[in-house]
Amino acid sequence: MLDQPGVTKSLARFIVATRWDDIPSQVRHQAKRSLINFFAVALAGCRTGPVEIALRSLAEFSGGKLVTVVGRSERIDALGAAFLNAAGANVHDYCDTHLRTVIHPTAPVAPAVLALAELRRLSGPDLLLAFILGNEIAARIGLAISPSHYSRGWHITSTCGVFGAAAGSGKLLALDERQMVWALGAAATQSSGLCECLGTPAKSLSVGNAARNGLWSALLAQQGFAGPPEPLAGAQGFYHALAETPDLPVVTAGLGEGWEIMATSYKPYPCGFVIHPVLDCVLDWRRDHPAAEVVRIVVRGNPLLSARTDRPDVSTGREAQVSVQHAVAAALVTGKAGIDQFTDACVRDPGVLALRSKVEVSRDSAFSTIAAAVEITTADGAIHRLSQPAARGSDANPMSDADLEDKLRAAAAGWNPRYDTAPLIDAVWTLDTSADVSGLASLAVPR
Amino acid sequence: MLDQPGVTKSLARFIVATRWDDIPSQVRHQAKRSLINFFAVALAGCRTGPVEIALRSLAEFSGGKLVTVVGRSERIDALGAAFLNAAGANVHDYCDTHLRTVIHPTAPVAPAVLALAELRRLSGPDLLLAFILGNEIAARIGLAISPSHYSRGWHITSTCGVFGAAAGSGKLLALDERQMVWALGAAATQSSGLCECLGTPAKSLSVGNAARNGLWSALLAQQGFAGPPEPLAGAQGFYHALAETPDLPVVTAGLGEGWEIMATSYKPYPCGFVIHPVLDCVLDWRRDHPAAEVVRIVVRGNPLLSARTDRPDVSTGREAQVSVQHAVAAALVTGKAGIDQFTDACVRDPGVLALRSKVEVSRDSAFSTIAAAVEITTADGAIHRLSQPAARGSDANPMSDADLEDKLRAAAAGWNPRYDTAPLIDAVWTLDTSADVSGLASLAVPR
Repeated sequence: MLDQPGVTKSLARFIVATRWDDIPSQVRHQAKRSLINFFAVALAGCRTGPVEIALRSLAEFSGGKLVTVVGRSERIDALGAAFLNAAGANVHDYCDTHLRTVIHPTAPVAPAVLALAELRRLSGPDLLLAFILGNEIAARIGLAISPSHYSRGWHITSTCGVFGAAAGSGKLLALDERQMVWALGAAATQSSGLCECLGTPAKSLSVGNAARNGLWSALLAQQGFAGPPEPLAGAQGFYHALAETPDLPVVTAGLGEGWEIMATSYKPYPCGFVIHPVLDCVLDWRRDHPAAEVVRIVVRGNPLLSARTDRPDVSTGREAQVSVQHAVAAALVTGKAGIDQFTDACVRDPGVLALRSKVEVSRDSAFSTIAAAVEITTADGAIHRLSQPAARGSDANPMSDADLEDKLRAAAAGWNPRYDTAPLIDAVWTLDTSADVSGLASLAVPR
Repeated sequence: MLDQPGVTKSLARFIVATRWDDIPSQVRHQAKRSLINFFAVALAGCRTGPVEIALRSLAEFSGGKLVTVVGRSERIDALGAAFLNAAGANVHDYCDTHLRTVIHPTAPVAPAVLALAELRRLSGPDLLLAFILGNEIAARIGLAISPSHYSRGWHITSTCGVFGAAAGSGKLLALDERQMVWALGAAATQSSGLCECLGTPAKSLSVGNAARNGLWSALLAQQGFAGPPEPLAGAQGFYHALAETPDLPVVTAGLGEGWEIMATSYKPYPCGFVIHPVLDCVLDWRRDHPAAEVVRIVVRGNPLLSARTDRPDVSTGREAQVSVQHAVAAALVTGKAGIDQFTDACVRDPGVLALRSKVEVSRDSAFSTIAAAVEITTADGAIHRLSQPAARGSDANPMSDADLEDKLRAAAAGWNPRYDTAPLIDAVWTLDTSADVSGLASLAVPR
């Protein structure tokens, strides 16, 4: 099976042949939603340690083809920018997710195509089409090996994202079919990233490289840098080395008939998804009530909620992302559940600490993983009962366009409260009628 | 076994603790031999297509920290130079080889440490020590997973070379133990490279990245870019993802007691090693005889010789590297067996073509793979019998220092006949008494 010919060629042919007119309107719209979400998470990530250090380091070597780093006044070469924008977008685990593979497709793909868009005169449809195709290729390559590939220790967003970045970049460069196979081969031999690094800055390296190396693969292919004819399914290729029993037909089945970007979901909160329905309840209640009067909180949810997140004692922002006690306490104190609620500082906040100990977790297998119920007891003895059958951001209750805009605005405000994001948001929603998107990324820098 | 703690930490401790005084004199000398060989193969490779394209592409993005690209007048940032010098050194498969792992250790390691040496004031002993340690780490990490890792499709020079580049660079940057673990972790999550790309320009990507990303891993670690505590043996780490049954104790057994660089061999000819004893015979005879008078050549060798290299008809230089008929014919016509004898042009040479059809291959299991015998029949009916029990470059008959110098001179002459390599060769042999090696790499550029 591993020698089955033509998988890479089939993908290359599809990427080359697909036109803007082939993309249904709801897919175009979903792509814009992914980009709104991308700018939100990239703005949230652009001030973090990994981005700061990598930017300082890369800037020392950088020279030509300078483009935008989201949220930053510094400009850097297109390869470096692709790295930094991907790393920044993924650093908080606040990305979009292709649920069947757990790939975060936009973090590696968008930075590559945005960097190219800034260097050339490309239209909005050009950009959206390339982005949608990159997303599709990353997801399809991953579908053939999920979930075993991830279980083996591979950070699938990185290992498959590099193909998406190569595909999207190659589409913008108008590679022919042979060059596209080369681009995918160059991506294959640069595919890397280990889950062992999750929770550490080192995670950002493979995500950043996926965007950077995918972009570079396409640029090299355009210059005639050749590779093997079947880098994916060849006897010593990607699937042989990085997978156990790849389901190769899945990669190309029904190409162009459906779009994996439609199976992407967005996170309203930067924490474990099983906590999300709980936060929906708590934030809803908190809008009309002060935190001070709460004396007890009982959370009921699927057994996975307690198994993964029953952590009454945490000491870092990162641990707090998987503590339902912290998430509930921080949401009650601040009325929010954004980046600032999952920082080390918030974990040490005396008010949050005091409430944290009042949160009890109860397991109930009658709940699905996207459902939860919360009982809040106030000082007057009243018990407030809330429930959420389907968390915001889940398939059954996706984030609305307005929710995504709010997420972007909140991330931007956390970086620079005077930053007016309206031009960026407008530019994304009107991408399909834009004749030149070279200025898009620069709208993601506060002036 | 995979959760065995401390493999990475043990290596880091060893790298940090080892001093120049710990390195035996024969190991120091072997390191210089590897560097002579490196400059030879890098000079041979610096004019090839993959280097040309990658140089042109990287130069567009490059700016600060400019250093030498071996053999080229262009200067480029240190990360780009590490990439290009590694890619160039390995492009002809003419590198040094750590036989037990088939790692070509110098291609990824030397370019990383040379780039750093050019940016800072470092002594010859600093450079040699870092190079020896990088070599050691790459080989040891590979020993635990050979030969299954390579059989799986992993280009082990790349996947393990990145650790060597990180270790050598980290040593030059005087990383502490914690930082060295981070550097090795950053290397682990960037480890990549597929054998599927062998024989194509794409091979150069992972070799170049090994040097570039290893160097960058050390630079990032110095700036505090953290990673996981056990990136090699952790539950989702390098060995779990990229190996089947790693023999972890091998990685650290007897650290510092022996040196893997002593198990490195060098190739006198840029072709399959089973052809080497044949070429020894032919070149020896050719020194005193004209090619024109040869009417028949019978080659006798180990069955592997005919199995791998009995290819009377080849059409490209790359195929010619595994054709004993071509190798013998080209050596008889030109009196040489260097880079120029394995080009497309030499394959099409009418004189070589005519002789190629007169070569017969005979298998004889009495011969080891490093032995061969040749019978050359001349027009006068005389039969000249030659034999080589142990090929030049094999463990039993290593290339001499003078052979290595000749290899370097021949490669340099192929690039620029007026290039005087004496200052470069002298500089390498006197490295252990040099106080400042920042000018070393620039001696590898013809003036």
